Amino acid sequence: MTMGTHDEDKVLLSAIDDPEDLRRLPLERLPAVAQEMRDYLVESVSQSGGHLAAGLGAVELTLALHYALDTPRDRLVWDVGHQCYAHKVLTGRRSQLPRIRQAGGPAGFPVRDESPYDAFGVGHSSTSISAALGMALAERAGGEHRRCAAIIGDGGLSAGEALEALNHAGDVKADLLVVLNDNEMSISENVGALSNYLTRLLSEPLAGQLRRGARDMLRYLPPIHELARRTEGHVKGLLAPATLFEELGFHYFGPVDGHNVEGLVRVLRNLRDQPGPRLLHVVTRKGKGYAPAEEDPISYHGVSCFDPARGLTKGTPAKLNYTDVFSRWICRAACTDERVVAITPAMREGSGLVEYARRFPERFFDVGIAEQHAVTLAAGLACEGARPVVAIYSTFLQRGYDQVIHDVALQRLPVLFAVDRAGIVGADGATHQGTYDLSYLRCIPDLTVMAPADEAECWRMLATGLVLEGASAVRYPRGTGPGEALPDDMEPLPVGQAEVRREGGSGVALLAFGALLPVAEAVGEELDATVVNMRFVKPLDEALLRRLAGECRHLVTLEENVIAGGAGSGVAEYLSSIGVHTPITHLGLPDAPVHHGARNDILAEHGLDRDGVRRTVQGLLQQS
Amino acid sequence: MTMGTHDEDKVLLSAIDDPEDLRRLPLERLPAVAQEMRDYLVESVSQSGGHLAAGLGAVELTLALHYALDTPRDRLVWDVGHQCYAHKVLTGRRSQLPRIRQAGGPAGFPVRDESPYDAFGVGHSSTSISAALGMALAERAGGEHRRCAAIIGDGGLSAGEALEALNHAGDVKADLLVVLNDNEMSISENVGALSNYLTRLLSEPLAGQLRRGARDMLRYLPPIHELARRTEGHVKGLLAPATLFEELGFHYFGPVDGHNVEGLVRVLRNLRDQPGPRLLHVVTRKGKGYAPAEEDPISYHGVSCFDPARGLTKGTPAKLNYTDVFSRWICRAACTDERVVAITPAMREGSGLVEYARRFPERFFDVGIAEQHAVTLAAGLACEGARPVVAIYSTFLQRGYDQVIHDVALQRLPVLFAVDRAGIVGADGATHQGTYDLSYLRCIPDLTVMAPADEAECWRMLATGLVLEGASAVRYPRGTGPGEALPDDMEPLPVGQAEVRREGGSGVALLAFGALLPVAEAVGEELDATVVNMRFVKPLDEALLRRLAGECRHLVTLEENVIAGGAGSGVAEYLSSIGVHTPITHLGLPDAPVHHGARNDILAEHGLDRDGVRRTVQGLLQQS
Repeated sequence: MTMGTHDEDKVLLSAIDDPEDLRRLPLERLPAVAQEMRDYLVESVSQSGGHLAAGLGAVELTLALHYALDTPRDRLVWDVGHQCYAHKVLTGRRSQLPRIRQAGGPAGFPVRDESPYDAFGVGHSSTSISAALGMALAERAGGEHRRCAAIIGDGGLSAGEALEALNHAGDVKADLLVVLNDNEMSISENVGALSNYLTRLLSEPLAGQLRRGARDMLRYLPPIHELARRTEGHVKGLLAPATLFEELGFHYFGPVDGHNVEGLVRVLRNLRDQPGPRLLHVVTRKGKGYAPAEEDPISYHGVSCFDPARGLTKGTPAKLNYTDVFSRWICRAACTDERVVAITPAMREGSGLVEYARRFPERFFDVGIAEQHAVTLAAGLACEGARPVVAIYSTFLQRGYDQVIHDVALQRLPVLFAVDRAGIVGADGATHQGTYDLSYLRCIPDLTVMAPADEAECWRMLATGLVLEGASAVRYPRGTGPGEALPDDMEPLPVGQAEVRREGGSGVALLAFGALLPVAEAVGEELDATVVNMRFVKPLDEALLRRLAGECRHLVTLEENVIAGGAGSGVAEYLSSIGVHTPITHLGLPDAPVHHGARNDILAEHGLDRDGVRRTVQGLLQQS
Repeated sequence: MTMGTHDEDKVLLSAIDDPEDLRRLPLERLPAVAQEMRDYLVESVSQSGGHLAAGLGAVELTLALHYALDTPRDRLVWDVGHQCYAHKVLTGRRSQLPRIRQAGGPAGFPVRDESPYDAFGVGHSSTSISAALGMALAERAGGEHRRCAAIIGDGGLSAGEALEALNHAGDVKADLLVVLNDNEMSISENVGALSNYLTRLLSEPLAGQLRRGARDMLRYLPPIHELARRTEGHVKGLLAPATLFEELGFHYFGPVDGHNVEGLVRVLRNLRDQPGPRLLHVVTRKGKGYAPAEEDPISYHGVSCFDPARGLTKGTPAKLNYTDVFSRWICRAACTDERVVAITPAMREGSGLVEYARRFPERFFDVGIAEQHAVTLAAGLACEGARPVVAIYSTFLQRGYDQVIHDVALQRLPVLFAVDRAGIVGADGATHQGTYDLSYLRCIPDLTVMAPADEAECWRMLATGLVLEGASAVRYPRGTGPGEALPDDMEPLPVGQAEVRREGGSGVALLAFGALLPVAEAVGEELDATVVNMRFVKPLDEALLRRLAGECRHLVTLEENVIAGGAGSGVAEYLSSIGVHTPITHLGLPDAPVHHGARNDILAEHGLDRDGVRRTVQGLLQQS
């Protein structure tokens, strides 16, 4: 039973509970399956919300891969995983699709625990070639022989990891199929020389003809024939358009039409058992088959519920979220300071840089999916007097971790990291939780780390980072805050100074880092606890901590980060370093993956909502 | 005054205190300067120890760059920095060179604080293109126009960050010169398709001739002329060998002889003011001009003191160091378990995999400088039943951080990280300290983290990691341990179980994580403290901690890691989580960069030697 979708209209799809069922159909029925699948995806995602445009673009490719390969024995490794909905539908999860990304429903990405067909768990981009290559090479360590295919978008190909993997795969001669799903757009517009190169490949039909007639033609050109023989590799460059991949040791095939499912099956059958590394270049269109999504694939990348007949509607503008705060702040900062530059690794929309990019194109650098480069580029800019702001999600900053240490912090360069989606992200689940950053940033020397409790504070912290001599990070949550009005000026905060919001008489002090401050305030009012908006994870307000540790019987730290190594641990370390041993309780996230679900539910589950914090504080009050 | 080197023989070099002095010399004197420089480097490094082969290979290139460019106004960004000794000699640091890498002497790598000529601090590879591109782009944010050059080795080019930077630079059209210093060898032999490609470029002399005559020749080939016009890019591929870089938007020049200093100057003068991204392919030889180093550049990569006339001599085999322990263990593991595979990112020698690679070539994967790919490749291998062991230095694991979380830990895949050079590394300095890993690993769910106190324990911990169901890391220090004999078997340790080495009566318990155990034991004996070899950073031995926290008045944790978020914080977090508030003092490294110097001196400076720990414990005993 699929909630609210019309299985009865989908006579082919509703009979597919497993790719075996698909493979039993004659090839010529696949276009009809594709049509049903597409209708199903639009119906289902319009009700559940989720990723749409990428999935619609990959319908035929998904069908063709499952049809031509012997899944799950053969391994399909999806890159990023936004496009996996059709794959989930085909592999026994059709009826669960309407609950995708909701607690208890399927994850929005492939997850190994969810299905044997999900060969590799994913969420971040550009891992698929590495993983599939590992699977292909496992045979050498006594594993079975399997066909292994990585399906990667042209956007994902710009990331260093994917290029590292191509470089290795082309050398190690594993039997690996890389399917390049080229839709000339990842989440944002693609950038980079590689993307330009792919576009050129597609626009050179002559080269394709040449490739087919290559050998024959050479016979009729005696003067160049000898040259050709002696410069074989480069003549291949002339005659096949794919020199770049060929030079890296891959056999290149394509480009082929990614919406001709029968053609795709034939090509895959030809390629599937060829030895060595092969790259199949497939051209698709994001949003394919649903006109509104084809026209505006960026808006239809990830959607909330909508009416399929009307498409997305512009609602009344929602309350300003933290991304909007950053968006307004960076435009203001760029106006007042011409040294400001903004850098994004392929997240112009997600990070709130659309308006900035329009107004300050010369000082906007979208580097593609390339977090490592983004961070070191910022360091280089800072060396010459620019004030770089790297807008990045908490979870993706993990990709540039060494660069934060080695290129930015150790050199004390004034790079400001605007760390969005810090804390619980909700529907994207375990791969995307921004719940490690306070731990992995706090151990880096000479880095100022800030966590705003409201929108105005976020603005002021960004302004603070911009005038610091060294590196800094402001980490703010996904979604909206309490609704504080934004400041009119760029006044910074005093560094390392917390704000006492309430002095209580109960002997307990609640030290809140960031977004959990309202919870702390509510509980503080109820139970007469002192409440502090800590603001700075590093440097801490040491004077205040000394005072409170002396006055209070018990300190409680609150943060939307794992407890392990988080902000609360910093408080404990400081007090221990001065020989003060006031009891502390740390509230935060546990040492375990946090899966998809609504943020508030997840916070409640881990005792980080008002009830949970109240219970903790009551327990402490009863002890003492 | 240069200690023990013969300045009087170096009439040209001894008059150069600044690149301006170099630029005043006529071009034809540069070969003589190069000869003096080479002699000086051999003399100096033979007395101080340090990096030799890379520096010898880059002598002419260094002279030519400073001669043709207007340093320090123009920016030279060295990749890795092993090759920077000639650069340091030219830029006012000649007399300090004999103290390179020693406390108070110059760093072994470029450091911004050390000289205005060190445009970018470095130590890890593959950052130079990103940084130089940032410098070039700073003009757009009101910076000055400068020439910016990145000098990168062929090995460094395999890393994702360098490829990300090429991809961006080729698109953004900045005025950037990338000098590819191609010596077909980084620290280890180079691997990867890109390396193969570069080798092919060098072996195709015909292509070079073609390039020179390209346009003329086309006129005489009417049948292909029209084709050529219509497939311009690919004819370029035919006529110039450099399709790959050209396809990425660079103008490619070369290959040129990197030991012809006059030729290099002429080429650089031609290129220096051309617009857009340019790549100059320079061919050099590591160790050039010093025969023993030319013959064995791997051994001469980094050296201790030696007699220049005799070269490196094989001393009596030193005490087994931790790398040797790993080396023996991995061979044993591979014998007893055919599922074992070993992965190294270009550190076959450094990580102790030479013997393993010889004996188990099919199960050995040197992926090149590509830490991200190394980790995800391991995850892919683990999916199919292999038992991957990633041999990596602590500082380089930072490069694969997201992959440890996203691809390994969140999927609970049994990948074992053999983390070498954890803790203080000594002469390599701040960029290479392995003092963050306990913090950045401890916050990752489902990861077992171990720190051995001696060689036998290192062996047993590796054996433990190999049989765990999930991911694990064993972090061991650079150099030798106390000298425990290695076990004969592969028995694992009980997970999460510490070892009480001594029960004391003073009320203080010393909890040592890893290499500082002997210090703790010595102090424990002296002051009658309880001493625990904690072994597991995660999971902790909770039962023991509960007992000791109940019995002791004070706990002291010891670790060779930053205190911020380290192993000691984990102890405090656990006790706080069960409502036990026994006072704890954390001994470890401070929240500041730790620069080059002898490991023992650095430990002493931070109170981590026997005297320092004794003082701390005495202080606690006096308090109570």
